[in-house]
Amino acid sequence: MSAHIIDGKAFAAKVREKVATHVARLKADHGITPGLAVIQVGEDPASEVYVRNKGLQTVAAGMNSFEHKLPADTPVEDLYALIERLNADAAVHGILCQFPVPAHMSEEEVVARIDPAKDVDGLHILNAGRLASGQAAMAPCTPLGCLMMLREYHGSLSGMNAVVVGRSNLVGKPMAQLLLRDSCTVTIAHSRTRDLPGVVRGADIVVAAVGRPQMIPGDWIKPGATVIDVGINRIDKPEGGTRLVGDVEFASAVQVAGVITPVPGGVGPMTIACLLANTVTACCRANGLPEPEGLTA
Amino acid sequence: MSAHIIDGKAFAAKVREKVATHVARLKADHGITPGLAVIQVGEDPASEVYVRNKGLQTVAAGMNSFEHKLPADTPVEDLYALIERLNADAAVHGILCQFPVPAHMSEEEVVARIDPAKDVDGLHILNAGRLASGQAAMAPCTPLGCLMMLREYHGSLSGMNAVVVGRSNLVGKPMAQLLLRDSCTVTIAHSRTRDLPGVVRGADIVVAAVGRPQMIPGDWIKPGATVIDVGINRIDKPEGGTRLVGDVEFASAVQVAGVITPVPGGVGPMTIACLLANTVTACCRANGLPEPEGLTA
Repeated sequence: MSAHIIDGKAFAAKVREKVATHVARLKADHGITPGLAVIQVGEDPASEVYVRNKGLQTVAAGMNSFEHKLPADTPVEDLYALIERLNADAAVHGILCQFPVPAHMSEEEVVARIDPAKDVDGLHILNAGRLASGQAAMAPCTPLGCLMMLREYHGSLSGMNAVVVGRSNLVGKPMAQLLLRDSCTVTIAHSRTRDLPGVVRGADIVVAAVGRPQMIPGDWIKPGATVIDVGINRIDKPEGGTRLVGDVEFASAVQVAGVITPVPGGVGPMTIACLLANTVTACCRANGLPEPEGLTA
Repeated sequence: MSAHIIDGKAFAAKVREKVATHVARLKADHGITPGLAVIQVGEDPASEVYVRNKGLQTVAAGMNSFEHKLPADTPVEDLYALIERLNADAAVHGILCQFPVPAHMSEEEVVARIDPAKDVDGLHILNAGRLASGQAAMAPCTPLGCLMMLREYHGSLSGMNAVVVGRSNLVGKPMAQLLLRDSCTVTIAHSRTRDLPGVVRGADIVVAAVGRPQMIPGDWIKPGATVIDVGINRIDKPEGGTRLVGDVEFASAVQVAGVITPVPGGVGPMTIACLLANTVTACCRANGLPEPEGLTA
C-alpha cells in the first residue's frame, strides 16, 4: 500500500488563506494592518529570490511589506541602527534579516538586536528559551510548518512516539520542543546515535532534518508511520544534471509510511506561509489580542 | 548481581573540594573571591534550613556569602530594587532568591529581574535559551549534578540512549538538553507516554524526575543500566511515621541496574554543591577567565 502524500504547496496555500482571513478581520475589527520588515544586505542571488517571494506573499495576504536593501559594504552599526528603528516602529510587527549576511557581520549578533517579540524567524535566544519553557514564543518557521501538517493529519499528537533526526538549532531542537509541547514522547537522534534504524523504527512520527541525501531508507520506517522530510539536498542525476531529494529515500519510504511529505513540494512551501503566520501572531500579541487560531504553536 | 550505589554525599563533597581548590586559585592568582548572594523573603521553615546550609557551604568553600532576609510583607518593588543593586555589585557573582516567595510576588517575575550572568540557579529564560542553543549557559543545579555523576561513571556519554522521565522546566527539560549536548540519543517521556515500561527498558541511562513515589519498578530497567533518581517523595511507613523514597523502586531496581543513586543520599546533596560550582563559573566568566574545569556543563 502506498502512503498518502502531503501536497505541501496546497497546504501552504491553505495556511496563507487562513492568514489572509485573519488579516482582513484585524483590519475590519481593529483597523490594524500587520507589517513585515525584511532586511537584505548585499546581493546574494538566492536571497534576492527569497526576499522577493516573501514580499509578494506578504502583500498577497493583505499585510504591509517593508523591504530594506543595504549594500554589501554597509557598516554593521548602520544595520543595527536600522534594526533599532524597526524595533521602535509600531507599524512593523515582524522583522527578519535575510541570511547569509556579509562576512563582516555576525548572524548571532544581528538576531540578538531584533526585539524578540518581532523575531518572526524565531531565532532569538529568548524565543528558544520561551519555547523550551512552555511560554508563548515565536517558533522557527520550518518546525512550525511541520507541526501544522502533523496536527492537520492527526488532530491530537498526544502520546505518539516522535523521533527527530538532527539536532540543529534551526530545525531539530525547536521541532523536538514543539512535539513535546503537544505531548509526544520525543526522541532526538543524530550522527552519534548508535542504532539509528532501530530508533527510527520505533517512531509513529519521523521528522528528518539532517541534510544528508536519502539517508533514511524505507525499511527503517514503521508501517503506517508519518514521515516529515525537512531535508533539501541537490544531487547529480545519472543521466546528467541535478535534482532535489530529501533526507528520506522517498521511493522506498512511500511504500511503507502512512503519510509522507515529498521533496520538493512538501515542507519547503510551508516556511514562508509560517513566516506570515508568525507576523500575524506577533501583531495580535503587540495589540493585546487573542492568538490567531490555527496559526501558532 | 547488585548495582553499584552512588554515594551522593561523598560525590558532593568531592565537588565542593574542587570548588574550594578553584576558589583558592582565583584568590591566589587573581585576587578574586567569588561571592554568592541569597535572598529570602518571609520565614518558611524549610527555606530557613536551605538558606543556612547554602551560606555555610559557601563560606566553607572559601567564597563570600551575602544573605538578605526580607520580611514576608516586603513590597515587591523593594525586592526588585535589591536585585538591581546585587546585579550591579561587582563583588556578587551569583544571585538566588529562595523559593517559595510570598503570594504577592511572582517567581517568574523575580527570576526575570536577575542578571542572567548571575542566575546561578539557571532559571532565567535566557539561560534556558542558551542551554537549548548550545551556548554557554547557567545550567539548573540538579540536572548539572546528575550530569556530573554520569560523566564521572561513564567518561564520555556519546551515543548512549538516555531516557528522561518527566518534562519539568526545572529538571526534565534542562536534563534532556544537557544529555543532548553530551551526544546522548535522548528521549523525553512523561505522563502521556503510551508504553513507558518499553521506553525505559531501551535506556542505557534513566533519569527519573516525575515526583511519583516508586513508580519505576526494577523490571522496567535494562540490566546494567545507569539509574539516576531525582525524585524525593515522603510516604507513610506501614509501622507508622514517614520515610523518603525516590521515583524509582530502589529495592527491585538495585538488583538489575549497573549503577544507581539512592534516595535520600543520591542526587539531593549535589544540588548545593552545583550551586557553588555555578557561582565559580559565573565568577570566572565575569572576569574573562577560562571556565572552571569539571564544574560546568
